[in-house]
Amino acid sequence: MCSPEVARVVSDRIKKEGLPQVSRRNFLRFGGMTAAGLAVASAVPFRAARAQEMAEIVDLSHVFGTNVPTYVPTDVATRETTVNVKDNGFYIQRWSFGEHTGTHMDIPAHFIEDGETVDNYAIGNFVSTAVVIDISAKAADEPNATLDVSDIEAWEAANGEIPAGALVCLYSGWESKWADVAAFRGDPGDGSLNFPGFGAEACTFLTTERDIHGIAVDTLSLDPGNSATFDAHYTILGAGKYGIENVANLGAIAGKAATVIVGVPRWESGSGGPCRVMAMV
Amino acid sequence: MCSPEVARVVSDRIKKEGLPQVSRRNFLRFGGMTAAGLAVASAVPFRAARAQEMAEIVDLSHVFGTNVPTYVPTDVATRETTVNVKDNGFYIQRWSFGEHTGTHMDIPAHFIEDGETVDNYAIGNFVSTAVVIDISAKAADEPNATLDVSDIEAWEAANGEIPAGALVCLYSGWESKWADVAAFRGDPGDGSLNFPGFGAEACTFLTTERDIHGIAVDTLSLDPGNSATFDAHYTILGAGKYGIENVANLGAIAGKAATVIVGVPRWESGSGGPCRVMAMV
Repeated sequence: MCSPEVARVVSDRIKKEGLPQVSRRNFLRFGGMTAAGLAVASAVPFRAARAQEMAEIVDLSHVFGTNVPTYVPTDVATRETTVNVKDNGFYIQRWSFGEHTGTHMDIPAHFIEDGETVDNYAIGNFVSTAVVIDISAKAADEPNATLDVSDIEAWEAANGEIPAGALVCLYSGWESKWADVAAFRGDPGDGSLNFPGFGAEACTFLTTERDIHGIAVDTLSLDPGNSATFDAHYTILGAGKYGIENVANLGAIAGKAATVIVGVPRWESGSGGPCRVMAMV
Repeated sequence: MCSPEVARVVSDRIKKEGLPQVSRRNFLRFGGMTAAGLAVASAVPFRAARAQEMAEIVDLSHVFGTNVPTYVPTDVATRETTVNVKDNGFYIQRWSFGEHTGTHMDIPAHFIEDGETVDNYAIGNFVSTAVVIDISAKAADEPNATLDVSDIEAWEAANGEIPAGALVCLYSGWESKWADVAAFRGDPGDGSLNFPGFGAEACTFLTTERDIHGIAVDTLSLDPGNSATFDAHYTILGAGKYGIENVANLGAIAGKAATVIVGVPRWESGSGGPCRVMAMV
């Protein structure tokens, strides 16, 4: 153990010189063990809010890593350990990445000049009713399969009209390919991309005939891999909505009533950016 | 408009060479106008999940920017625009930052060797009952004021025992100083830091006598600015819990029943990292 005087010198050095170095206090390592308090909530005005009553939180996000599939092959994230517990007393990494890496958001400014950026986009739009439309059967036969108006009609025939405030999620089954970069990109070896996405007419329908918050895909792009015109991007972002790409685990919530929450940091002037997507089921 | 052939060449170039350049389709700019669908949810099996029924989502996050206060003055975020809509057809920024910048999470690995990292920390812990303890009165008199066991006792006397699964939030009023880096750091000009934080005994109480998810502060550190021993960090992270620093807007939810959701991207091997903190009130 350091003396208080030494600890003070070390602390001051962190604050003034920017070289993190703290003493370690092993006696305070509790190893994760805590005595569970017996919460008594009756007969008091305070209560847990309703979200607490929900049974399950499902993670719809991939790990944000340095070896994940990207739309532009050279646009990868990097990370370096700047300090570590053993040598410095604590651990921090420094990251560098483009905003459209990993499970991330596309916001209007990504394609629309003077479109809204992510930092000040209305936060209420990030809590949405999940509408998961399963096109995995046709995606198994045709990599560039699209979610079409007919798929929306079939979903609505079974479930009722897409509710206001929905996040319409394309489930293609592509999430299972995530660990294999070439397979996820659908690259047969010639550099081309082949994976499912939203069809142009479906996006027009959703932005004119329904009142959605946004759309989400379990692939690299809102548009199918073979798109040269980016209709889904222009239509969704042009309508002031947002998209989420590289969503994980949609199969776990397909067919269930769920609320999807998108926790996207307020990236300054951001065109979107890495986020955490979670479902309350 | 480009011809389909030109668009194809451009698209292929993006996918293979990494130089984003797309055609612009102004005719698809809908200007954010949509026809609101009239959702008819009765007599169909699909329904909005309960979180949708909540009235208000409150943002508890600051903008993640390049000029925000940081604990280590040299540890600032940078961003650069790599492509823009006018010249390239779309807009992306590239970021570089340390994990402990802006509104962000501290996870056990930040101080505890072999502690849990943020990418695989149990997601259920990121949905918590808000317990906001207001120490703004004493913080106005003493910058390094601490949230003490007596403050917890006073809160429990009024509200009942802190419920299991709580995020205990220190509200000092410091959020109003955010735009003034020196004021937020509490630096009188000598490089020292002075701001409120959690007291050591309060952290021991919360991790042994109550069953919390974590703690949050509206300042730069879980510990007060004049701490040389980082007791709050060691106690909370050592118990396998997490902390959130630089939380905003706690004044808006103090005294209300609220659920706090922390959307932290799954930073690979992360010691924590930038996140979005939101409350459902």
